[in-house]
Amino acid sequence: MQGKALPGFRDFYPEDLSLRNHIFATWRSVAARYGFEEYDGPPLEALELYTKKSGDEIVQQLYTFRDKGDRDVALRPEMTPTLARMVAARVQALKKPVRWFSIPQLFRYERQQRGRLREHFQLNMDIIGEAGFLADAELMAAAVDIMRTFGLGSKDVQLRVSDRRVIKSLLLGRGVSDSQLPAAFAVIDRSERVPKNVLEEMLREAGYGKKQTSAVFEIAELRGSDKVFGVAGEVAEPLSHAIRALQAMGLGEFVTVDLTIVRGLAYYTGIVWELFDAKKSLRAIAGGGRYDGLLDQPALGFGMGRPADDSAARPRAAGAGHIGRVWPPARRRA
Amino acid sequence: MQGKALPGFRDFYPEDLSLRNHIFATWRSVAARYGFEEYDGPPLEALELYTKKSGDEIVQQLYTFRDKGDRDVALRPEMTPTLARMVAARVQALKKPVRWFSIPQLFRYERQQRGRLREHFQLNMDIIGEAGFLADAELMAAAVDIMRTFGLGSKDVQLRVSDRRVIKSLLLGRGVSDSQLPAAFAVIDRSERVPKNVLEEMLREAGYGKKQTSAVFEIAELRGSDKVFGVAGEVAEPLSHAIRALQAMGLGEFVTVDLTIVRGLAYYTGIVWELFDAKKSLRAIAGGGRYDGLLDQPALGFGMGRPADDSAARPRAAGAGHIGRVWPPARRRA
Repeated sequence: MQGKALPGFRDFYPEDLSLRNHIFATWRSVAARYGFEEYDGPPLEALELYTKKSGDEIVQQLYTFRDKGDRDVALRPEMTPTLARMVAARVQALKKPVRWFSIPQLFRYERQQRGRLREHFQLNMDIIGEAGFLADAELMAAAVDIMRTFGLGSKDVQLRVSDRRVIKSLLLGRGVSDSQLPAAFAVIDRSERVPKNVLEEMLREAGYGKKQTSAVFEIAELRGSDKVFGVAGEVAEPLSHAIRALQAMGLGEFVTVDLTIVRGLAYYTGIVWELFDAKKSLRAIAGGGRYDGLLDQPALGFGMGRPADDSAARPRAAGAGHIGRVWPPARRRA
Repeated sequence: MQGKALPGFRDFYPEDLSLRNHIFATWRSVAARYGFEEYDGPPLEALELYTKKSGDEIVQQLYTFRDKGDRDVALRPEMTPTLARMVAARVQALKKPVRWFSIPQLFRYERQQRGRLREHFQLNMDIIGEAGFLADAELMAAAVDIMRTFGLGSKDVQLRVSDRRVIKSLLLGRGVSDSQLPAAFAVIDRSERVPKNVLEEMLREAGYGKKQTSAVFEIAELRGSDKVFGVAGEVAEPLSHAIRALQAMGLGEFVTVDLTIVRGLAYYTGIVWELFDAKKSLRAIAGGGRYDGLLDQPALGFGMGRPADDSAARPRAAGAGHIGRVWPPARRRA
């Protein structure tokens, strides 16, 4: 009875599970304080649940196989499609807005990346049936409150907030066509991590001219309320209201408007945001946004990762310190 | 975004998850009171972890497939092989006896049985590195204490306790050979559920003569301390001591000695037991036993199922009532 766990899977010995339980208990207590109810779904779903509406990136990473009944199935890579399925099945009976959270184990399979985890746990909080900007602000506040419950402040974590409607409006106003938008989103999303010449090549392949290309890079530089709201006009009102709501909650120090935040998944439609380790700005702890198109009704949510490296997390999870070692890059797309 | 969960998988809406959390919290509180620490392992394991040492029955029911890296893998059907793997990996460092519990989701795939669940949650409590009968008694006491915490008494649930060493000794003493033992165990295990002529045929196929066949049925009738200890002799001492320990803990009313209890899994070696709904005697709520051979050191444990039918369980789980509707047939072999 020797052997190891499969590559990318973890054993949780009691000292590791004790930390995991501490994190889950904190998540549950803040979610309950915000009036969210817990739900869960199956770890295995029909493959088509993910191939239909999620972005390409997630489909390539699916842990998928054919079962003994010849069904194409996948270990869940994210929770939102399950949530959407469950809400759709009882859409008449459920009292709106639906305010639900879950702590699923999520799975991915990338053949080439050895040593990378193939499973992780994530908090998901979602609101279904609420179109107003206060719902966006509330979810961001909940994510920040979880950090504060772990003993972290605005010097440790920062919210970077954007709105896909604003980015889209700015691009269309600068001569980018509807069909060219996905390439611009992809470039803006990568603008901090990928060399400029690679990004320029991506745009060239999507048929961008010189002027449109500079427009994309100009938008990728737009940071701070003054700059963004100075150029965006009326389309930026929900974003501006949400920021002001966070300021009214006393969370202004945690928030930056930053149009480089796009979120990878294709289904986001409005305000999108990420919560970053303030000292390692490329590390997202949590992220989410509004995905009104997925359920044919207003909807929004976020995912928050849990520590991948328990040995680094142990002395820090419950207190202050540098969160960069505690929270791994955690993206909703798992 | 329509569609249902895969056949045999459940969605947990908030009212269902609230019950699940209540049951899990009760399990955790009793396990903690008995000094057990929680652990967890991956839901996906290498297939060979199960094909090596488990019984045939579990292997046929595996939810197994080949992953993108051409590994044969299986969704875990039981927790004991994972536990054994984890303990073996740190056997020098772990302080003995190891006293661990876990609440895994387990999976099985039987093609022919439509409508049956393919996943369920189970409490597992195990002790590694303790040979004495008090450890057996302690695990049985913990299972009973969970029932008492749910408000149930000896009129609701009953422990039926046996010892494979006793059964083996009685069979060998009546002319059954070592190689014929598995057939006898299989027949005794099924003696309450399967017609006698079918069982006789099973024994005939295993080469049993008339005299040996009647010996098997005679043992399958042995119930009650007086009868069993009257015929068994010295080999029954651990069983008899464990029963007396339970009586000393004030749990005598819950216990019956019953040699029809065998447990299906091949790896059990000593005292084995099941906790039954007293009003529907064929329904096991929990079951376990000693499996000293699996880890090359003394080891024992049990599994306890959770309600499959939440709608039936809801009004009853926290209080008294007929547990038969609350607890489904739950066997360690999932």
